[in-house]
Amino acid sequence: MEHWDHVHALLLAGGKGTRFWPLSREDHPKQLLKLFSDRTLVEDTYSRIRPMVPNERVLVATSKGLATRLMALFPDIPEDNVIVEPLARNTAPCIAVSARRCLERDPDAILAVLPSDHFIADPNMFLEVLESATAHAARGEIVTLGITPTHPETGYGYIRFGEFEQEPENEEIRHRARRIQAFVEKPDHDTAMSYLKAGRYLWNSGIFVLRAATILDKVKLHLPGLARAVDELVEAEKAHKNAETLMRIWSDMPNISVDFGIMEKAEGIVVIPASFGWSDVGTWRALTSFPTDENENFVHGRVITVDSTGNVLYSSHGLLAALGLENMVVVVTRGAVLVCPADRTQEVRALVDELKIRDMTEYL
Amino acid sequence: MEHWDHVHALLLAGGKGTRFWPLSREDHPKQLLKLFSDRTLVEDTYSRIRPMVPNERVLVATSKGLATRLMALFPDIPEDNVIVEPLARNTAPCIAVSARRCLERDPDAILAVLPSDHFIADPNMFLEVLESATAHAARGEIVTLGITPTHPETGYGYIRFGEFEQEPENEEIRHRARRIQAFVEKPDHDTAMSYLKAGRYLWNSGIFVLRAATILDKVKLHLPGLARAVDELVEAEKAHKNAETLMRIWSDMPNISVDFGIMEKAEGIVVIPASFGWSDVGTWRALTSFPTDENENFVHGRVITVDSTGNVLYSSHGLLAALGLENMVVVVTRGAVLVCPADRTQEVRALVDELKIRDMTEYL
Repeated sequence: MEHWDHVHALLLAGGKGTRFWPLSREDHPKQLLKLFSDRTLVEDTYSRIRPMVPNERVLVATSKGLATRLMALFPDIPEDNVIVEPLARNTAPCIAVSARRCLERDPDAILAVLPSDHFIADPNMFLEVLESATAHAARGEIVTLGITPTHPETGYGYIRFGEFEQEPENEEIRHRARRIQAFVEKPDHDTAMSYLKAGRYLWNSGIFVLRAATILDKVKLHLPGLARAVDELVEAEKAHKNAETLMRIWSDMPNISVDFGIMEKAEGIVVIPASFGWSDVGTWRALTSFPTDENENFVHGRVITVDSTGNVLYSSHGLLAALGLENMVVVVTRGAVLVCPADRTQEVRALVDELKIRDMTEYL
Repeated sequence: MEHWDHVHALLLAGGKGTRFWPLSREDHPKQLLKLFSDRTLVEDTYSRIRPMVPNERVLVATSKGLATRLMALFPDIPEDNVIVEPLARNTAPCIAVSARRCLERDPDAILAVLPSDHFIADPNMFLEVLESATAHAARGEIVTLGITPTHPETGYGYIRFGEFEQEPENEEIRHRARRIQAFVEKPDHDTAMSYLKAGRYLWNSGIFVLRAATILDKVKLHLPGLARAVDELVEAEKAHKNAETLMRIWSDMPNISVDFGIMEKAEGIVVIPASFGWSDVGTWRALTSFPTDENENFVHGRVITVDSTGNVLYSSHGLLAALGLENMVVVVTRGAVLVCPADRTQEVRALVDELKIRDMTEYL
């Protein structure tokens, strides 16, 4: 429990993406969508950690274009806690910058790195696992949360785990970490099925818990250029340098993910197997795993169904009537409607590309 | 040719129906939809006969609720030519009333009875067949147009034809009529297939051509109650009786179709086999027979398709994006969207009933 006082939650809320078109648009990415409730996904993420983490220790990393809207969503989060990336630089830089900021406030700061556009079915279980993760992190381990697979998913990276870590000093750790044997790329279906049967593979959730001091050491070791840039940025900010200077420093940072730049290289990385009903909600199809009606449909908004099962039926504007549909995705928004089979939602990007080619930019 | 001078075109435009929901609504029936062009179906019907029939001889029979809108659509049709049925009484009464009106203007009047919500691909061929029909009608025959089947349609009534009528006096009759052996109910699929192979069956188009005097004789014979009511109505109108009186007379008329009340009973009915690309456009599915793009899709409005074939994709409001669809119907309107497989569009009525049950009357 004592560890919670050091925990800083970092919401990664800078993502773009068109896979949820037409609901997501260029200026309205997934984390701002209302998929599972009347709240946006980033609000859901915030609400999950708020029972244990006060606003003063919630950080939000985002892009210039989204910062104002996020600040409006979270008026109680101090403005200083919003890390605005003037240009997209993937996750390693913003985590390093956030870690530096936390370290200055608390030398024992623990960072919970939380993607802001995921779904978690059981928030209590999530906090329970997070608590165990903070206990591991306090000892200097870099903890990832790995999700026990429920089906042969081909859309996720996997983590192969090995033995238990050494016996924790704190016997209250309920969810014990395992050594990581390997990070594994997204598999094909047969491989995913073999992972599922093997029982030693977990989905890589992208959720990390680590001491700020630990991650900065790793950055120094594996991404020394980034470490220097972070130092420079902190100095520049203290000296109130202008936006151009800050922009120049950000643009010098390597455009690299924390997974690729640190996790897959570093020593002392562990994983806690968890089962709190997780999805990265990568495409519309992902919602079929979380049906909301008695016919296995995911339904949102004003929808009427007749003899329809296993569909995603989403309306943010007007009535959607589905008759005799199976495994389809139908999304109704104010200006645009998408209809496609659920197993082809990964091709929505191609459709958006087609809109660009045809110069139908009003729908992007 | 001389016969054209006697032809009065009667547009039957009183129909209701919800099979084209959500585009058709209770106050916006099929004949007012823009399916094949930027014009409504009733305008298409009007335009087809206008090359041969002047506005003075175009009559429109419709309901009280639709009269104003139809008059606005056809400002050049004399107001006297609009027959407003104060309550729905099917086709026999309005045809009889129209025939009476025409007869008073021209004792040799020929009536072309035209449903106003059908599709005809080849309007020139249609007029050519109509011309032959008027020549037959002038001799006192009641002529129906029968469509040579192109597929085993189960949604239409059929006409079995026999021998040719006697040699026409006018050798210019290009499309000669046949005796009718029987009117046949909508068949099941196997029966429809046997009709198609037999070559002696035609689709009953519901298009009739007949002398006004002839049909009134038949009405007197087969529906004497209607004949009396028509006489009474004409007298009442001449005497400028009030709306209540007229309403009472209309409500006394039998609620019966001309097919059932006259055609299937009368002598001297003939059929002209025709092939001008006809459909009664009974459901959304019917549109799949008239594809508009290179992938066999019927497309209307702002639609983008990727890898989609054999669909009906209709948008009257905003963009519709179809990805990987086959044999589906998607209809996007301002307040409501319908998605269903093409072979289930006959169940759209059930869906509309469901809306009524749920008291979602704003979508009816």
